[in-house]
Amino acid sequence: MKRQLFDFSDSLSTMAKERLESSAIGEMIKLVVSNKAISFTAGEPSSELLPVEQLKEAFKGVFDDPAKLCYYWSDLGHIELREWICDWMRKDGLSAKWVKPENIMMTCGSQEGISFAAEAFIDPGSYVLVENPTYMETLLSFRKQGATCIGVPIDENGIIIDELKKIIEQKKVRMLYTIPNFQNPTGYCTSRERREKVIELLSEHGIPILEDDPYHYLSYDKETPPTYMSLAGDNACVIYLGSFSKIVAPGLRCGWMVLPDQIVSKIISLRVNANLSLPILVQDGLFNMLQKIDLEAHINDLRDVYRKRRDDLCAAFEEYIVPLGVRINKPEGGFFIWGNLDGIPDMFEFAKYAVKEFKVGVIPGSVFFVPGTSDQSAIRFSFAKVDKKNAVEGAKRLVAAINAYPKNN
Amino acid sequence: MKRQLFDFSDSLSTMAKERLESSAIGEMIKLVVSNKAISFTAGEPSSELLPVEQLKEAFKGVFDDPAKLCYYWSDLGHIELREWICDWMRKDGLSAKWVKPENIMMTCGSQEGISFAAEAFIDPGSYVLVENPTYMETLLSFRKQGATCIGVPIDENGIIIDELKKIIEQKKVRMLYTIPNFQNPTGYCTSRERREKVIELLSEHGIPILEDDPYHYLSYDKETPPTYMSLAGDNACVIYLGSFSKIVAPGLRCGWMVLPDQIVSKIISLRVNANLSLPILVQDGLFNMLQKIDLEAHINDLRDVYRKRRDDLCAAFEEYIVPLGVRINKPEGGFFIWGNLDGIPDMFEFAKYAVKEFKVGVIPGSVFFVPGTSDQSAIRFSFAKVDKKNAVEGAKRLVAAINAYPKNN
Repeated sequence: MKRQLFDFSDSLSTMAKERLESSAIGEMIKLVVSNKAISFTAGEPSSELLPVEQLKEAFKGVFDDPAKLCYYWSDLGHIELREWICDWMRKDGLSAKWVKPENIMMTCGSQEGISFAAEAFIDPGSYVLVENPTYMETLLSFRKQGATCIGVPIDENGIIIDELKKIIEQKKVRMLYTIPNFQNPTGYCTSRERREKVIELLSEHGIPILEDDPYHYLSYDKETPPTYMSLAGDNACVIYLGSFSKIVAPGLRCGWMVLPDQIVSKIISLRVNANLSLPILVQDGLFNMLQKIDLEAHINDLRDVYRKRRDDLCAAFEEYIVPLGVRINKPEGGFFIWGNLDGIPDMFEFAKYAVKEFKVGVIPGSVFFVPGTSDQSAIRFSFAKVDKKNAVEGAKRLVAAINAYPKNN
Repeated sequence: MKRQLFDFSDSLSTMAKERLESSAIGEMIKLVVSNKAISFTAGEPSSELLPVEQLKEAFKGVFDDPAKLCYYWSDLGHIELREWICDWMRKDGLSAKWVKPENIMMTCGSQEGISFAAEAFIDPGSYVLVENPTYMETLLSFRKQGATCIGVPIDENGIIIDELKKIIEQKKVRMLYTIPNFQNPTGYCTSRERREKVIELLSEHGIPILEDDPYHYLSYDKETPPTYMSLAGDNACVIYLGSFSKIVAPGLRCGWMVLPDQIVSKIISLRVNANLSLPILVQDGLFNMLQKIDLEAHINDLRDVYRKRRDDLCAAFEEYIVPLGVRINKPEGGFFIWGNLDGIPDMFEFAKYAVKEFKVGVIPGSVFFVPGTSDQSAIRFSFAKVDKKNAVEGAKRLVAAINAYPKNN
């Protein structure tokens, strides 16, 4: 029998005692795995779409230089990779004139960038703005630093300007976090017009923007609007988060942050404190691969596959669950279909029921809302890993689950 | 010309404004590189001692399973690697009976474990105990969370018990951070007797111990004493930090934390917030290598090389700089020789002078002390990357620098 006598409860910080929450999505995904269910849960790339052979080849080169297995001299990360990103962003019109490789820091996925921004901008009690609903782990990171997250209502065109205006006229806000393209969880894409108005309004109030853009290249119908960073230009009020997770592989944990000059040294200090540096060998393997792969062609292939998956799942939903009263939003990019179904008193309970009883997994939309504003009718469906056969079978299982589940009267 | 108009100063957190400091060691190392100096600065393994070929071979296997390029299902990290570590620690007597793979979390170097512990145990204003002097980046991480670090005096046998007693009787302390074996920067090794007394004393006061043990296997003269974790046993008051940085390669950024049950879920939340997960492909490559390498033989080889380097540098110092009044401590393990030289008013200024004028780099000891307690006479010398020729030449350059530097009168 194992015994542990020491009591840590007197030693814990307020953060550890009061501000840490576990990920409800992680819980649902574990249920999906243990129930061997058809999964509409995970917002991650399909493993057969990863450039495995190219990565395998590219990583061989890493070991030719033992320095790649040592500490790295730049706190910002792999210099050639940062130069590559800088050129690529400029070529694609994503960045602003002031962006140099010295403004780019490699991160362990976008999440690390979110975490650093939370530390740099949030004091206990600070107000921060997020789209409502938004990416759940951002809510967790902001609350960990003690923030009160204020949800800005959004529609198909993104942040609703009048609502934003009302909030920032009433409260001193530290920053706005936004996923402008094919937002997680709604799939909404913020229009260019709205982006311009958001910048204008926030700049008047001196509020910086944290632009999280992992789905930028996963557009299926038309071009994505210009980034906040490019629209803001010399008014460098934007911190941009980019990621290779959706277009190369999430397991590389390679994202990046574009940082205005004023905050570079702050974020470098956070990097050194957090972990000294990331494994440079991973960045080097990725850099080697980017020299050889036709990334544009690779992204076009991804778009073709994901576009078809979106269409197939939307078609299956139209046929099977829309007739039961489910309303769905067909997104123009990304991984997510946002749905609503009235009459379910607690969508989390329904999701657990559906996965256990009917072997189909969905994410209850409530987890993406700031506290006190939950929409119990909301559901998030991911099509990233769903082929046509599973789309139809999953939709049928949802029909069975909805029909069998006790309704609100 | 690049212009950035937005002003971030109103948006920054107290942490960003007041609690972040840059690494003075990093500054010295950059000076060493730019001056092409002989370096006694870096506490990192020599690159020719890394098992490069074995790693190259081991990483090929990673790409056979695309799942290793995706998100990983366990928040704690690579399951087989954690099982391997658990067995290894048990076999070597490092752990306690209660330690299972579920108590082990992989970290991005020991630094990430230090950072997580700082978040879990420190509130602004909290008192934490550190050996004085100690690893500088720990001081930075603790201060980032708002701690007041209290330095416990140490001697060749580690923490001085009476001094520890005085402090904890006066102040409510959140934890003790200690590097028991071949401490950075002093090279001191805490005796078994002192370890037992520290545990007894701290347990009476309910204070947990953060045991940072990267140099455990780098002992050159005799066996290292039992770990705090093993001595504490069922009184599970210890969080243990292990690392592959010194015995395999620092660039893998693979360390681990051994966590008592009560705090596992807290640290998992910190992991998810920080970066969702580390790149599992690196842990998988390391695990593959550990299956094939004779780690014990590899460690013995390292010991032979570093023992000789220690002896060579100590001999060179005895011949050249000891006659000038430098006192040195010959360590029984690790990477560092701790020295003192009286009569230098500001050792940081001397270190900059020596690297610029005489092309020899040392770390001023003052950076390792808690604020207000600096010992200006202290110097840290690393022998990790220094062969016999550079030991002699570096010692001669130090003689020239000491002789040329304006003395205190």
